[in-house]
Amino acid sequence: MRFSPLLEQLIDALRCLPGVGPKTAQRMAFQLLTRGRENGKHLAHRLTEAMQHIKHCQRCRIFSETPLCHICASTHRDPTLLCIVENPLDVSLVEQTESFRGVYFVLLGHLSPLDGIGPEEIGIDQLKTRFEENITKEIILATHPTIEGEATAHYIAELAKPYTIKVTRIAHGVPKGYDLEYVDAGTLAHALAGREVL
Amino acid sequence: MRFSPLLEQLIDALRCLPGVGPKTAQRMAFQLLTRGRENGKHLAHRLTEAMQHIKHCQRCRIFSETPLCHICASTHRDPTLLCIVENPLDVSLVEQTESFRGVYFVLLGHLSPLDGIGPEEIGIDQLKTRFEENITKEIILATHPTIEGEATAHYIAELAKPYTIKVTRIAHGVPKGYDLEYVDAGTLAHALAGREVL
Repeated sequence: MRFSPLLEQLIDALRCLPGVGPKTAQRMAFQLLTRGRENGKHLAHRLTEAMQHIKHCQRCRIFSETPLCHICASTHRDPTLLCIVENPLDVSLVEQTESFRGVYFVLLGHLSPLDGIGPEEIGIDQLKTRFEENITKEIILATHPTIEGEATAHYIAELAKPYTIKVTRIAHGVPKGYDLEYVDAGTLAHALAGREVL
Repeated sequence: MRFSPLLEQLIDALRCLPGVGPKTAQRMAFQLLTRGRENGKHLAHRLTEAMQHIKHCQRCRIFSETPLCHICASTHRDPTLLCIVENPLDVSLVEQTESFRGVYFVLLGHLSPLDGIGPEEIGIDQLKTRFEENITKEIILATHPTIEGEATAHYIAELAKPYTIKVTRIAHGVPKGYDLEYVDAGTLAHALAGREVL
């Protein structure tokens, strides 16, 4: 035993945080004990509150402690434009661009039959109900550019066909400011196929 | 506002951890909410317990929830050999070497008159009481090789003079396995001055 039991347990518990190994956990525990006890107590309180009260928005499924999130509840958003993403974090990435004023639907995953993740697990029923509301005029498929993400986008595109909904997919290509040298062949092929007239 | 209030507050609170910036805090919060709620609650509990109950060992001042830490309370340690370090973390670094079987005294800092840190703040009174016990036969000064660390070591060496205590300082020199090329001139000068007969 290198530390006191409570200290060992704290170091161990800190390792549940992503990217925190034994050395970092140790450094965190010592810093909190040395000059951050109030911060440590405050963090404990915030963690308890968050883990207990943060649920998913009933409409778009992003994290929210109120039944409707601030985006779904807002009157300044365009409810006819629906951006479909895989994770709550993707919402914050799109929000950061400050170029989207529509609303969201979070799948909380992607189709992955091999892992037993089918349409039911990613809320397709709820999405269908939403299409039937006749509010949505365009869906923007912003799933990840992975095999599963593409398959999920394709599945939802098919699902939207019976409705008068315009289906779009976010553009994939060479990232702005990147040297072509650093772009993989698949992305470059995609960028060539999706070339735009200037 | 990009997230719900509770989520914003959690992200903010996570930033009290060393090395955690806004992006990392966000990633941690999302991961805990997505697939680690039980871990999050567990961490909150461990944090509360640790911040509340972990104090300093009355004898050596390392972190301990019992009045005497497991090192001071052990009968397998040599109480005549006292290693003096700056921080509790330094104790764990020395312990890792598995080559020290004595006991410790943690200064919880170093002398730094400009910052108002004098002998009183680093527990010199308590250290003196310890010298007067007549148990200690050798002190190993393992303060950091910085200006403040050296000054602190020098101060304690002077303090120990009236007692029949052997005063030693950990060796400084070229780290094992290092190319000389990467060692700074000060360390190399120290290594030359402290050369050993083979």
